[in-house]
Amino acid sequence: MNYPELFLKKHEDKRLRQGHLWVFSNEIDIKRSPLEQFTAGDLVLVNDSAGKALGVAYINPNALICARLLTRKPNSSIGEKFFKARLMQALALRQRLFEQPFYRLVFGESDGLPGLVIDRYDTVLSVQITTAGMEMHKSLLVKVLVDLLQPSAILLKNDNSQRQLENLSLQPELAYGEMPDRLIIEENNTRFIINVAAGQKTGWFYDHRCSRAQFAQWSKGLKVLDLFSYAGAWGITAAVAGAAEVICVDSSESALALAVESATLNQVQDKMQFVRSDVFEFLKQAREQNLHFDAIVLDPPALIKRKKDHKAGYEAYRRLNHLALQVLSNDGILVSASCSHHLSRDNLHEILRSSARHIDRHLVLFASGGQGPDHPVLPAMPETEYLKTFFCAVSSRI
Amino acid sequence: MNYPELFLKKHEDKRLRQGHLWVFSNEIDIKRSPLEQFTAGDLVLVNDSAGKALGVAYINPNALICARLLTRKPNSSIGEKFFKARLMQALALRQRLFEQPFYRLVFGESDGLPGLVIDRYDTVLSVQITTAGMEMHKSLLVKVLVDLLQPSAILLKNDNSQRQLENLSLQPELAYGEMPDRLIIEENNTRFIINVAAGQKTGWFYDHRCSRAQFAQWSKGLKVLDLFSYAGAWGITAAVAGAAEVICVDSSESALALAVESATLNQVQDKMQFVRSDVFEFLKQAREQNLHFDAIVLDPPALIKRKKDHKAGYEAYRRLNHLALQVLSNDGILVSASCSHHLSRDNLHEILRSSARHIDRHLVLFASGGQGPDHPVLPAMPETEYLKTFFCAVSSRI
Repeated sequence: MNYPELFLKKHEDKRLRQGHLWVFSNEIDIKRSPLEQFTAGDLVLVNDSAGKALGVAYINPNALICARLLTRKPNSSIGEKFFKARLMQALALRQRLFEQPFYRLVFGESDGLPGLVIDRYDTVLSVQITTAGMEMHKSLLVKVLVDLLQPSAILLKNDNSQRQLENLSLQPELAYGEMPDRLIIEENNTRFIINVAAGQKTGWFYDHRCSRAQFAQWSKGLKVLDLFSYAGAWGITAAVAGAAEVICVDSSESALALAVESATLNQVQDKMQFVRSDVFEFLKQAREQNLHFDAIVLDPPALIKRKKDHKAGYEAYRRLNHLALQVLSNDGILVSASCSHHLSRDNLHEILRSSARHIDRHLVLFASGGQGPDHPVLPAMPETEYLKTFFCAVSSRI
Repeated sequence: MNYPELFLKKHEDKRLRQGHLWVFSNEIDIKRSPLEQFTAGDLVLVNDSAGKALGVAYINPNALICARLLTRKPNSSIGEKFFKARLMQALALRQRLFEQPFYRLVFGESDGLPGLVIDRYDTVLSVQITTAGMEMHKSLLVKVLVDLLQPSAILLKNDNSQRQLENLSLQPELAYGEMPDRLIIEENNTRFIINVAAGQKTGWFYDHRCSRAQFAQWSKGLKVLDLFSYAGAWGITAAVAGAAEVICVDSSESALALAVESATLNQVQDKMQFVRSDVFEFLKQAREQNLHFDAIVLDPPALIKRKKDHKAGYEAYRRLNHLALQVLSNDGILVSASCSHHLSRDNLHEILRSSARHIDRHLVLFASGGQGPDHPVLPAMPETEYLKTFFCAVSSRI
C-alpha cells in the first residue's frame, strides 16, 4: 500500500526504535509533512529524518499523541487480514493463559492494536475504542470479531473520556447481536453478576484477578473489609474461599446491588454486609468507634488521572492507607492497590513505609502483584503498566 | 537492661527513624562513644545526638555495617524471651501463608532478626548466621528453636562468605539432633530430594516457589529448557504439571544428580534430559544447531554480588537473555529472573526490552514476580528485596 508519508525530525525516531509506538506532534517535521494535509484517522507511512521507513501508523493531526504505530513492517496493508492476524495472536495468548473465556482479549498497544481494548465475557464482547484512528476501522473490527468468535453481542462502550480528546461520540453502540441486561461471569471459582452496558469501564475489572486469587487463599477465617468494593469482586471471592465475615463498602448503590446479588448467587450472603458510604467517611467513623478488621483491601479507583494531579492524588492515597492501617487488627493483612499509572510502584511502597512508621507499626510486604496476564506490559511503553498491589503483614512495633 | 550507649552524629538517626535497621560506622559519634570500648557482638543502646534512645542493637566495631537494631524498644532485654517472641511471630506468619512446614522461617531484618536466616524442611532446620552479633546468641537460638518446633536436627551451615567479614568460622556445625544425608521436601505438589549439608546456600531455594507454580500452569505441552537448573526445581515442577519435554542444564554434577533422582521420584524421568554444561556454551551451541524451545527458564545465580561488579554483571545478564531469546520458538515463553539485589527490576526490564528489539521480536511482559511470601520485604530496607522474575511472551515482529 502507498500511504502518505510522515517525516520525523532528526533523532525523533529513537523512541520508536526502542519499541515505543507513539509519535508526539512536536516530533514531526511539519515542513516536509505539514499536518494540515492529514485527516484524523488517516493511515501514514512513518519515516525517520533520513527517509528510512519505520512502519505504518494512524494519525490524528489535532492530538498531542499525533500518530500511533500499527506495524513496523512498512509494506503492510492495514485491512481485514491485518486485524485478523492481530486478533488471532491476542486470542492465542489468552487461550494459553486462561482455561475459560473470561478475559481482556485485547490490551491496546501491548497487543499491537493502539486505541483498542476488548473485554470478553464468554460470548459477549465489550469494546472500548479511544482514538479516531481505531474508530475508522470499527466495522472491519466487528466483522473480524464475528468471524473469529461468533459472539452473541458486541457492545462499543464509547464512554471513555479520552474519546472527547479525539472528537468521538460518547454514545454507546450495539454493533452486533443482542445485549443481555445482565451477565454471569466466572473468576477464581466464583460467579459474578455484571451489567456491561451500565457498569464502569468495560463492565468488570479483570486486571486484579490473580491478586484476588492470592488474597482468597490467605483470608480464611478472617474478618475482611473490602473498600471501594464496586461489585464485590475481592470481598465475595474471599467469602467463597472461607473468610469468616466480609464488609463491602462503596459509594455506588447500583454496584452494591450487583454485589448483593452475586453474594447470594455464591451462597455467602449470610456472612456479608454491604455498606453504601464514602470510604474516607467510613474509615474515620470506624476509627472513632475503635473498630478493627483482620484484613483490609484498599483498591481505590484511579486517584491520579493526569500527571498534574500527582500531588493531590498522592496525598489521597497516603490518607487512605494511613486510615486503613489505623483500623487494621494487630497481625492483620493490608492489601493496598493503585491503578493510577502516575502513582509509581515506588510511590506506593513509600506511602506504606511512611504510614506504618507514622503509627509505629512493623509492616512487611510479603507479596506484590500487578495487572493480570491478559493485560501484558510492553516494556518500551511505561504507559502500558498501571496496576500495583502490595500485600502487607502489619504487627506492633518490634 | 543497662546496655552501654552508642551515640549517633547529628541527623544520622534519620534512616533508623524511617524504618531501616542498620547503623554505618561513619554515622557514629566516636568522640562520645569510642568504638574501641566495644567488642564484636556486644549489645548497645543506640541514641540520637540529642540522647534520645532509638532502640537496642548489636555492634561490630570492625564492620562497615557497625550496628544492627534488634528492637525499637529501648528497655528491651535481649534474652530468651526476646528470641522466643521473634521466632513465634515469624512462625505465625508462615503458618498463615503455607499449609505445609516447608518454608524460610526467618528472613533476617524483615523478621526483626538481623543476621539470621532459617530455612525449615519439616523437622530439619538449616540456619545461616552471618554476623558476630547474632553468633553471640547461637546457643539461645538453638534452645528456643528446640522448645518451639521440636526439630530432629538443627544445622548451622556457616558457609556464607559474609561470615569472613565478621571473623566467624566457616565450619558447619550440627547444633542439635541428627542430620539425615538427604531429605525429601514438598513444593507445589512436587517432591524433591535435597542435601542440606552439601547443597548451595541453605540447601534449597524456596524464594521462587510462587513463580514456579505460575510457570507450571502455563507450561503444559511445551518443550521446556531449564537453565541453571540446580536441583531441577523449575523443570521438574513443569514436567509434573504436564510439560511435554524438559531439558535441565547446570554445571554442577552433584546438583544434576539430585535432579535426576527427584525426576524419578515424581515419575517424570522419561520426558526429562539433564545436561552438564556451562550455560553460555550450551546456548551458543543450541544457536549454532538452530535448536528452539517453547519455554525457557533463565534463573542464574547472582551475577552481581557487589555494587562494583554492576557493569560486568549487567553485561552477563544481557548476554544470557539475548542468547536465550535467540533459541526461543516463535510465540514462546521466556521466564527471566535475577536474584542480584544490585540488578534492579528496571535493569532487567531494560535488558528484556533491548534484547528483544535487537533481534526485532515483539516481547510483552505478561506476569512478574518476586521472592515468595516467606521472604518478606521491609520497605525501609531496599537490601531486603533481591528477587525479580519476568514472564515474557515473545512473537515475531509486529
